Amino acid sequence: MERIIVREVGLRDGIQMAHRFLETERKLEWVRRDFAAGVREVEATSFVPPKIVPQFADAAEVAAGALAIEGLLVSSLVPNLKGAERSLAAGITHVNYVLSASDAHSRANVRRSTDEAIEEFRRIAALKQTDLGKDLVLGVGIATTFGCTIQGEVDPRRVLEIAEILVGGGADEIIIADTVGYANPGQVKDILRPVLEIAAGRRVSCHFHDTRGLGLANLVAAVEVGARAFDASLAGLGGCPFAPGATGNINLEDTVFLLESLGFSTGIDIGALLELRRDVESWLGDERFSGAIARAGLPKTYRPAAA
Amino acid sequence: MERIIVREVGLRDGIQMAHRFLETERKLEWVRRDFAAGVREVEATSFVPPKIVPQFADAAEVAAGALAIEGLLVSSLVPNLKGAERSLAAGITHVNYVLSASDAHSRANVRRSTDEAIEEFRRIAALKQTDLGKDLVLGVGIATTFGCTIQGEVDPRRVLEIAEILVGGGADEIIIADTVGYANPGQVKDILRPVLEIAAGRRVSCHFHDTRGLGLANLVAAVEVGARAFDASLAGLGGCPFAPGATGNINLEDTVFLLESLGFSTGIDIGALLELRRDVESWLGDERFSGAIARAGLPKTYRPAAA
Repeated sequence: MERIIVREVGLRDGIQMAHRFLETERKLEWVRRDFAAGVREVEATSFVPPKIVPQFADAAEVAAGALAIEGLLVSSLVPNLKGAERSLAAGITHVNYVLSASDAHSRANVRRSTDEAIEEFRRIAALKQTDLGKDLVLGVGIATTFGCTIQGEVDPRRVLEIAEILVGGGADEIIIADTVGYANPGQVKDILRPVLEIAAGRRVSCHFHDTRGLGLANLVAAVEVGARAFDASLAGLGGCPFAPGATGNINLEDTVFLLESLGFSTGIDIGALLELRRDVESWLGDERFSGAIARAGLPKTYRPAAA
Repeated sequence: MERIIVREVGLRDGIQMAHRFLETERKLEWVRRDFAAGVREVEATSFVPPKIVPQFADAAEVAAGALAIEGLLVSSLVPNLKGAERSLAAGITHVNYVLSASDAHSRANVRRSTDEAIEEFRRIAALKQTDLGKDLVLGVGIATTFGCTIQGEVDPRRVLEIAEILVGGGADEIIIADTVGYANPGQVKDILRPVLEIAAGRRVSCHFHDTRGLGLANLVAAVEVGARAFDASLAGLGGCPFAPGATGNINLEDTVFLLESLGFSTGIDIGALLELRRDVESWLGDERFSGAIARAGLPKTYRPAAA
C-alpha cells in the first residue's frame, strides 16, 4: 500500500481571504481535529505582516498550539526573510516560501522581480548557517508554473531553471503551484517529470487550485508521473472571495476520496473531515465551501485503501 | 490533430428531470446553436412514454427539426422496442438503448432483470432485418458499469460479458455509463481496455456523471486508454433535482476546454456554448447549472487545439 501525503492548507491558503477572523482556539480545534482524522501535515499559519493579512495576527499562538500535537508536522508560509525568522522564533522550522515564475505576477504580488525573489530565497536558505535556523527545513513554491493571469504564458524552461536554482541553493522541497488554476493534465506531466529529476529525491509537492474544474484531473496526472505529496484545503476553501469565479485549493475530502479509491493510502478518515467541515462552516459563515463528497456522499462501494 | 467526439446529451439526460417543460422551439434553437458552435452529434430526445416523462412529449417534432440540420448526427434514447420503433418512424435511425449491469438497478428502474433487458436489446437489434429498421445504427449503454447505489459493487466480469453479448448481437456502439457517479480513474482504465478490445473497432463512448467530482479525471483516464467519444451536457445539466446532492453529466464546456487543452480537436467553440447556456438558463429557470469555465472564464493561455 503506497502512501501519499496530503497536507492540509485550509488554515493558511483557505482562510487568508476569509471575511471573518477565526478565533485562535477555533484554529487550533481545526488542527487538532485534522490530526484526529489522520492528517499528519498541516500548513498552520502564515508569517505575513498582520497589517497585510489580519487573519494571521495570531501566528505565534497558532504555532505554539499546533506544535504541541505530537506526531504532526507543522509548517508555515512566509513571504520573506523576516517571516522566516518569525516562524523559526515561533518554533516552526518547516517553512514554505513562495516565489513566482511569472515576473509580472511576482511584481504585482510582492513588488519584486522573480530574480529578486530568488535572492530573498537565498537569504532565507542562509538562515540554515545561523543558530536560529539550524533546524530549518525549507520548502519553496514556484507559483504560476502553468501560466499567469497577468502575463499569460510562462515558459516551462524558466520553471525548470528556477527549480535547479532552488535545489542548488538549499531548498528541501519544491512545491509546484498552479496559483491561478490554469494547469491541464498534459502540462502537469510535462513539467513534473523533469522537476522530479531535478529534485533528485527531495520532496516535490503539488499545490493545485480547482478554479477551472481540472484540479483532481491534474492530481491524477501528477500521481501518474510519480508525485506523492499534495496540498489540499478542507471544504475547498481558498481563493479570493472578492474575485467573482475564483475558487480555492483542491478539496481535501475529495482528494482523499480520489487517492484512496486509486489504491493509495492517505491515512485520513473522510467521515471525520466531513464532521469538521460542518463546524468550520458554522465558524466562518459566508465563504465558498465546495466539495462533491460533502454534497453527494461516499459511494456505497468506497473502501479506504488501508482497509 | 486527433479528433475526439463530444456528443451533447443536455437535451435528453440534461432536461429529462427538469421542472419546466421546455418548448419545442427552444429545444430546436438549442440544437441549432449547438451545431453552430461546432457540435456534430446530439442526443436530441427520448422516446419514452410521455406519461412517464412529459418533457419528451414532443419527441417526434424535435426529431423532425433536428434532422433538418445538414451535417448533424441526431440520435435518440429509447427505453425499449416500442421506443426504438417510434424513433425509427420519426426518422432518427441512430438509436441508443440503455440496460443496467446491476440487476437491482435494472429491476428498480425498468422492472426487468438485466437478462430480460438483454432480451429486449435483441428484439431491438432484430429491427435491422425489417424495412422500418434497415438503417438502424444501434448504440447500447451499459449503466452502473462502475457500481450501483442499490446493490453496491458491480462485477467487472459481468460488464465485459454484457459487452460481448452486445457486440455479438449487433450493437454498433457500446456506451460505458457511470450512471450514479461512482467511477474512479483506475476503474475506468481497467474496464475500458478490455471493452475497447471486445468492441473490435466499433465505437466505444463514455457517459460520465460528475456526482463525486471525478468526471473530468475519469475522462482523462478514458482518453489515455484510447476512448475517443464522450457524452456531455451543456451547463452540466442532468441528474435528479429531487435527490439532494445529485449532479448531472460532465459539463460540456469544461469537457471541450479539457480536451482542447490536451491537444485534441473537438471542433467546438466554447464562447458560443457559453452564450447558449446563458439563454438555456433563462429558459429553464431553477435547475442546477454547473461549470468551471462558465464561472471562472478561460485561461489567458487557452489555445483551441485546431487553432
